[in-house]
Amino acid sequence: MITVSADVLSAQLNSVFRAWGFSQEHGETCAAVMVDTDLRGIDSHGVGMLSAYEEWWRDGKINATPDIRVVRDQPGLCAIDADHSLGHPPAVLAMELAMAKARGHGVGVAVVGRSNHYGAAGYYAHMAAEQGLIGIAMSSTPAPLMVPTFGKQPRLGSNPIAFAAPAQNNKPIVVDMATTTVAYGKVTIARRAGKNLPAGWALDEEGRTLTDSERAAALRAITPLGGERDLGSHKGYGLAVMVEVLSSVLSGALLSGHVPATGEMAEKTDIGHFFMALDPQAARGSRQAYGIDMDHLVALLRTTPPIDPAQPVLVPGDPENEAMAQRREKGIPMVPALVAEVREVAQRSGVPQLF
Amino acid sequence: MITVSADVLSAQLNSVFRAWGFSQEHGETCAAVMVDTDLRGIDSHGVGMLSAYEEWWRDGKINATPDIRVVRDQPGLCAIDADHSLGHPPAVLAMELAMAKARGHGVGVAVVGRSNHYGAAGYYAHMAAEQGLIGIAMSSTPAPLMVPTFGKQPRLGSNPIAFAAPAQNNKPIVVDMATTTVAYGKVTIARRAGKNLPAGWALDEEGRTLTDSERAAALRAITPLGGERDLGSHKGYGLAVMVEVLSSVLSGALLSGHVPATGEMAEKTDIGHFFMALDPQAARGSRQAYGIDMDHLVALLRTTPPIDPAQPVLVPGDPENEAMAQRREKGIPMVPALVAEVREVAQRSGVPQLF
Repeated sequence: MITVSADVLSAQLNSVFRAWGFSQEHGETCAAVMVDTDLRGIDSHGVGMLSAYEEWWRDGKINATPDIRVVRDQPGLCAIDADHSLGHPPAVLAMELAMAKARGHGVGVAVVGRSNHYGAAGYYAHMAAEQGLIGIAMSSTPAPLMVPTFGKQPRLGSNPIAFAAPAQNNKPIVVDMATTTVAYGKVTIARRAGKNLPAGWALDEEGRTLTDSERAAALRAITPLGGERDLGSHKGYGLAVMVEVLSSVLSGALLSGHVPATGEMAEKTDIGHFFMALDPQAARGSRQAYGIDMDHLVALLRTTPPIDPAQPVLVPGDPENEAMAQRREKGIPMVPALVAEVREVAQRSGVPQLF
Repeated sequence: MITVSADVLSAQLNSVFRAWGFSQEHGETCAAVMVDTDLRGIDSHGVGMLSAYEEWWRDGKINATPDIRVVRDQPGLCAIDADHSLGHPPAVLAMELAMAKARGHGVGVAVVGRSNHYGAAGYYAHMAAEQGLIGIAMSSTPAPLMVPTFGKQPRLGSNPIAFAAPAQNNKPIVVDMATTTVAYGKVTIARRAGKNLPAGWALDEEGRTLTDSERAAALRAITPLGGERDLGSHKGYGLAVMVEVLSSVLSGALLSGHVPATGEMAEKTDIGHFFMALDPQAARGSRQAYGIDMDHLVALLRTTPPIDPAQPVLVPGDPENEAMAQRREKGIPMVPALVAEVREVAQRSGVPQLF
């Protein structure tokens, strides 16, 4: 395990993106989002994605020089064509446009089509919270993963929902979750560790629970949040449908990798994203009245009597804030396999290895 | 078991509300929403709520002659003071205002404070879908029910999320869910039937799973969707926090019954609601392009291979549509206890019993 500073990691990532033909601005944006995600401890969605991005770029699924355009614009809502860009630059643009609309109208929405993986949804929701706004970000994903309740084949993606809301004296509340019981990354982590999965995460070809992590990683069939019907899996499924409508159908993207008209898997990648910003001042009349009540909500949750005094009740965003404090000071820890992966990408891309 | 036609039930409910001092318009609105909810088979949130409403009205928690006012208004967002009305009239007004804003700006939001129980959130989301718009409705609740992950005391309500999106040739997709593993009504149904609960629904005072439905009904401590930490209960908890922020904090309402500044339970009822409408035409440029892709999504989900051919995969909203078709034709089935309850309310309110 080595640790790498945010600055060095950012420079390494940007040099790779530049070598692939990204503009300086796009390279910096992708690097900034990825490093922030690593600083927050969401290791599955930062630099850990680099080799996947390389593969998609080599396969022509990522356009290094996209013409990202606003194709429809109303006072409260706009639609963006990402032209097969890697997702981070159009996502940052979309959230900025949603925020500008929210400042003028109370609420703003931006949808993005023909996009790619954009990292962690929470980053974009958090952008709004940093500006005193409430942010929501959702996304469809390139391939199916979630098996609908009563079904035995995946049809929807992990379809994440992120929500961020600023407070007055507390850090923003940040929710960032797949609508599957677990993200696929949790299955691969168990497989690498040679561990079984808890019952309720993954399914076999007949829709029965599957604890063998090796098979589960190969089958890619994860339950909706809730796990099984009796425990509310139809709710996780319903949330994923909501995310699919708002991200894919509203932007005209594929349906978690399926061509809408045929239901067949598409060759190309065409992910949709949904972004929303809300201005608390428009609703409450005063930013302070809102912020103080947010602090009260944080206090109410934090003072919940815990089952185990050693594990207090958390407020959504706490683990990420703790990771951020540690990693800003000590650097981002990277396991040897990840270091090797990044070094190989750098080598193949013809740029110096910075760590 | 008797069945009552929608018209008769509606007249009965309206006569009761009129006797309590509601205006003709408010009485009709409450009755219409409740009967629609019963027609859709959501028995816990329609006429089944009448005796609770009576109790709250007698306790002075429901203002029969509220002055419902828009207190803040921006082009995309408005805030409504419900003046302690029963929730249905201000909720219908709020969704209508959100829809009008969406038609002009692409998106519209309305928040409501100082309100009461409004029945099923899905009704309001569905209002938008009936007009070709996408609708979202959320609400806080009068008392805590959900125990945050790692905690052993309820802090948030059942905090429902509803989502509705129209299609072209299919009925709208409608998601309507508590963010708890189950609504409290499921626990009382099990208690009345003398059945144990499945493990994972409810907790005891020490935060351990509780299957005794008698004790669970008394303790009112339900898990967040996900059930336990390993199966993602922090996600259900996170969603409930999102609903609390959007419904309560944005409208200045209580925090699931807690006074914000002290965290103590309040005497009065002051629920907050959140409503949003989105215009698909603003995003896609054409209502038809959107509607056709919605039909494709419905087809994709419906053709998921089922585990059991006798139980096909459902699209969210299917059970409610089936109930609606049956009950429109045959009437709304009411168990004897519920019939007696409604007759007693009518008697106490001094209005004729219509069934």
